[in-house]
Amino acid sequence: MKAYCIGVDLGGTNLRIAAVTPEGERLEVINLATRLHDGPHAVLDDMAASIRQLIERQNGRLLGIGVGSPGPLELPAGILHHPPNLPGFDGLNLSTELERRVGRPVAVNSDANLAAYGEFLLGAGKSCHVDSLLALTLGTGVGCGIILDRKIWQGMQGAAGESGHGPIDPNGPPCPCGARGCLEMYASATAIVRRARELGLRSMEQGSDGAAAPLTSSSVARMASSGDPLALRIFDEVGRALGLSLANLVNALDLPLYVLCGGVVAAWPLFAPRMFATIREMSYVYRMSMPADPNVFEPGKTHICAAQVTDAGILGAALLPLAAGASASA
Amino acid sequence: MKAYCIGVDLGGTNLRIAAVTPEGERLEVINLATRLHDGPHAVLDDMAASIRQLIERQNGRLLGIGVGSPGPLELPAGILHHPPNLPGFDGLNLSTELERRVGRPVAVNSDANLAAYGEFLLGAGKSCHVDSLLALTLGTGVGCGIILDRKIWQGMQGAAGESGHGPIDPNGPPCPCGARGCLEMYASATAIVRRARELGLRSMEQGSDGAAAPLTSSSVARMASSGDPLALRIFDEVGRALGLSLANLVNALDLPLYVLCGGVVAAWPLFAPRMFATIREMSYVYRMSMPADPNVFEPGKTHICAAQVTDAGILGAALLPLAAGASASA
Repeated sequence: MKAYCIGVDLGGTNLRIAAVTPEGERLEVINLATRLHDGPHAVLDDMAASIRQLIERQNGRLLGIGVGSPGPLELPAGILHHPPNLPGFDGLNLSTELERRVGRPVAVNSDANLAAYGEFLLGAGKSCHVDSLLALTLGTGVGCGIILDRKIWQGMQGAAGESGHGPIDPNGPPCPCGARGCLEMYASATAIVRRARELGLRSMEQGSDGAAAPLTSSSVARMASSGDPLALRIFDEVGRALGLSLANLVNALDLPLYVLCGGVVAAWPLFAPRMFATIREMSYVYRMSMPADPNVFEPGKTHICAAQVTDAGILGAALLPLAAGASASA
Repeated sequence: MKAYCIGVDLGGTNLRIAAVTPEGERLEVINLATRLHDGPHAVLDDMAASIRQLIERQNGRLLGIGVGSPGPLELPAGILHHPPNLPGFDGLNLSTELERRVGRPVAVNSDANLAAYGEFLLGAGKSCHVDSLLALTLGTGVGCGIILDRKIWQGMQGAAGESGHGPIDPNGPPCPCGARGCLEMYASATAIVRRARELGLRSMEQGSDGAAAPLTSSSVARMASSGDPLALRIFDEVGRALGLSLANLVNALDLPLYVLCGGVVAAWPLFAPRMFATIREMSYVYRMSMPADPNVFEPGKTHICAAQVTDAGILGAALLPLAAGASASA
């Protein structure tokens, strides 16, 4: 009888539920819209119904269920606290609510931690044979997950890895988190579009109605790739912010591997040169252990690379229940 | 027969060797000048001779020997790499050199890691009953040590905790490490004196020859305490830099405890208000777990406080060999 796990990726827009083998192979994925307007219990009911569907259809031995959620998520309790991307979910205990519906234990962690865990088990962490890594997810916001000695480092209250809100420039643009000049204000897809608007860029692409399509981080990247100097400047700023943030993280933690995940990473050639130049300039720990070619992994050197797994988050969620003590608290 | 450990604190100016009980009580301390001009082997000979003296005089059961050294120190090997405060020591393997001289195993770690470990075992870490903490040592430079789950986090190459060289302002003053605007350029005793000179401050105190005594961070602190607005501004800048650095570290690690050690901490009332204001402003993780009174420890909240142990470094060094697996690498 085949064995499998179920991983749930709860996002503000999409809800995805997957059956995954213990080796990380996707057996089946259910894609739904997250019914935020119907409230959190409708979303939990959708989650539970999909889990039951997968259990029925896989007809194997279910090894465990894991859920990744946007934060702030109090861990190990699994309680959401005013999550900006899940309005209405404040105070909800994700694990007990879902356990009640499916009658089985459910492991919960943050989406950024599980993306790091998925990359650790199946992606860059696996191919580089390391026990520790830090992953920054550059999407709508900037998430961060830290794996230390094969465990998710979740901190005292589950808020470790909020480096997306570490200050890059305390005089920078105000961030929804209440601070100013956070990494997220420079290196997220949202920040790229905001900067493009500030600099007066307009999409050269047409929507279905013939009007200019709205700007996205991908369209700004395409403008940069075709040589637009303002668009190039935006990705240079992305690289500089990432370099400064990574300099702080490399100096603090001295890990062998830092992985960049998320949609913005498709623009790697546009931001990586400035990122590497900045980290070389600002971190003597990086210079002590700099590889001859920043794009090639060398054992014992500090490697910074793009994610190697698509959907690391849902895979990390599925495999989370397999590892006893997969997470560590302060 | 009484049991004891020996701890060595190797500094650029002073060399101190202590016999310490397993409970952290100092039995005897030998204070020497570090004979840098006679070369590293003279310093190692002094160390070994003092260790032998203590062994003879204590006449008990020696449980282990630990040494704290300025960095960069490659761990776990124990090799110094161009340590700026120990000229001539480049390439020296501290543990094998000392083991050869005393015929016993020697545990080596960085002075900043051992100050953190001493505070963890005997100081703020003990009184707050936490398993993890980060300690910043504000002295000639700014050192940093991280204890995670009761172990020193030393990183891939022993360079974890170099947060003294994390960038605060990439346009700030150049740092000997090669970067600009590192925390050390704002919050060390050296930085305080440099800023005082830049702002034209002169010591109001007289040396033995009747001339104005040279500025020190303590004399600048006394000027600030007596209301000098420029001296007050310097400590305000110290507090702001510490707040920005701690905001990054709190967001990354979400630890229960951050301890400030070293000589500059005597000026706590001068820099702490701005430090707390800055971290409140710049770290939403701190705001999520902020104690009602920042000066009072509350379980489950983030506590930032001054060191509780004098000489945490030498005590941490002495107790290091007692803990099997006291350090963790990436």
